[in-house]
Amino acid sequence: MAITVVGSVAFDSIETPAGKRERCLGGAATYFSLAASFFTDVRVIAVVGEDFGAAEEAVLTAKGIDTRGLERASGKSFFWAGSYMENLNEAKTHITDLNVFASFEPKIPAAYGDSKFLFLANIDPVLQRRVREAMPDVKLVAGDTMNYWIKDHRPALLEVLKGLDILLINDTEARMLAAENNLVKASRTIQALGPQTLVVKHGEYGATLFQGNTKSENDTKCFKVPALPLDEVVDPTGAGDSFAGGFFGYLASQKEQTPAAYRRAMFYGSVMGSFAVQRFGTERLQQLTRAEIDARFDQFRTLTHLD
Amino acid sequence: MAITVVGSVAFDSIETPAGKRERCLGGAATYFSLAASFFTDVRVIAVVGEDFGAAEEAVLTAKGIDTRGLERASGKSFFWAGSYMENLNEAKTHITDLNVFASFEPKIPAAYGDSKFLFLANIDPVLQRRVREAMPDVKLVAGDTMNYWIKDHRPALLEVLKGLDILLINDTEARMLAAENNLVKASRTIQALGPQTLVVKHGEYGATLFQGNTKSENDTKCFKVPALPLDEVVDPTGAGDSFAGGFFGYLASQKEQTPAAYRRAMFYGSVMGSFAVQRFGTERLQQLTRAEIDARFDQFRTLTHLD
Repeated sequence: MAITVVGSVAFDSIETPAGKRERCLGGAATYFSLAASFFTDVRVIAVVGEDFGAAEEAVLTAKGIDTRGLERASGKSFFWAGSYMENLNEAKTHITDLNVFASFEPKIPAAYGDSKFLFLANIDPVLQRRVREAMPDVKLVAGDTMNYWIKDHRPALLEVLKGLDILLINDTEARMLAAENNLVKASRTIQALGPQTLVVKHGEYGATLFQGNTKSENDTKCFKVPALPLDEVVDPTGAGDSFAGGFFGYLASQKEQTPAAYRRAMFYGSVMGSFAVQRFGTERLQQLTRAEIDARFDQFRTLTHLD
Repeated sequence: MAITVVGSVAFDSIETPAGKRERCLGGAATYFSLAASFFTDVRVIAVVGEDFGAAEEAVLTAKGIDTRGLERASGKSFFWAGSYMENLNEAKTHITDLNVFASFEPKIPAAYGDSKFLFLANIDPVLQRRVREAMPDVKLVAGDTMNYWIKDHRPALLEVLKGLDILLINDTEARMLAAENNLVKASRTIQALGPQTLVVKHGEYGATLFQGNTKSENDTKCFKVPALPLDEVVDPTGAGDSFAGGFFGYLASQKEQTPAAYRRAMFYGSVMGSFAVQRFGTERLQQLTRAEIDARFDQFRTLTHLD
């Protein structure tokens, strides 16, 4: 069933040990949408500027992504420049130009109204909440956030968390949000804030799913997926959003979101993250086939299963 | 079949956020032996001082560990004091008193001569090599090392690596040994130095097995095991040695060391590491039962398997 996603569509200039790219198509909603599009229908809500042309839009529409919620504003699109020269796990931000994103007011096309799945990518929690409230009938809501909102916009973020079924964040963000270093304890604190499902991403070490009431280390409502051991990470940009797209896209494609579906969703999340980092920007996701996804899913099984 | 292990038997004073302990029984050979003893016969080679009494020896013999290779020297046993106040993944060393260990010359009891499995715990590579050469008929040799030997005793270490089937080290050590940041590439470099099997331990993120000729990211001769999500890590001391004991102990208990046996060995390694850190020193390993080990093995399956 269809997912509506709200988030950034942007241009990124990226430098990594593998090279440089200027003004690639990027943004959390872009990576999420591309990754999720292999599993289900995706509808995007974002704002872009006059520098966003037909070629960029075609990247999305080629995957069947509904772009009726892509607002054109006068000015430039959100622009980010960053590098990963010393540490592939953490971007060093050089430029963040919000541009048209600074005055973004998400508008939900009527045609998106029957979406049963909603993904709130990492944007101002005030906007996340507004979209959440405008779509009260969704079946499952997932979201992302970042250190900036956790630290400086906590009250607004806490309001968003109340309306989330699933939160996907990284280790550092989970520890910061819970003010607790131990991730098992942190997961309990975060679950008490709203989201019954927490996915903590560990970069090159994979991700952990915390679900239900994780009362002790003997609890089995925890699931782990590794990252694929890769001999080259070309560009880590968008890995987390691609994970989210694979994870939530797969969940939305299933009639019922059973525990078994969540476990497979974790695998698909890590599969999509592993593809995303193998080329600059969205290059690999654009050229991907479902057969490649399935083959890599099997590879993850071999990587983790005893028999 | 029996494992002979050579390494340190020591006293440790440890401080962690969970508390303090003075002069616990410790040392790599101690943790390794206790963990491996649940799977197979273990014979230890080490030197201790006059402060090592009947009570300490009974910790080993209670688990059926053969201590005929435990040499008593005049002086004090190896003593280490460290803390993990800021980072549970990395010990801060306060005191290292080699004491009787400084002049350790491993002697192999005749009764150990038919051991088919040999574990060279983290000690001077010159000693590791001597023991390896004195036991030419072993079937499988595994070993550990540390940053100090990698940096300052590289030629001696390279000689040891030639005689190893399996090397178990952590991320940082693997990167340092291979002079390569990417772990997949590093694993190839290390395998070319001798050990066809490399186990890289990631602390709270588990461990990766690299085996055979890992030519590309599509290689499936890689296996991942997570660490158990624990709501309290009381004392990380000995986690890596306990991992090695579970891993190698299980392998030695099997008639054939098949790929499937290696995968299960990785699980048993992480199982034993997870127990070790739940109490100070060797407390948890001393009280452990095989039924608890099996139950936790099943927990790891639930944590990682789709069905």
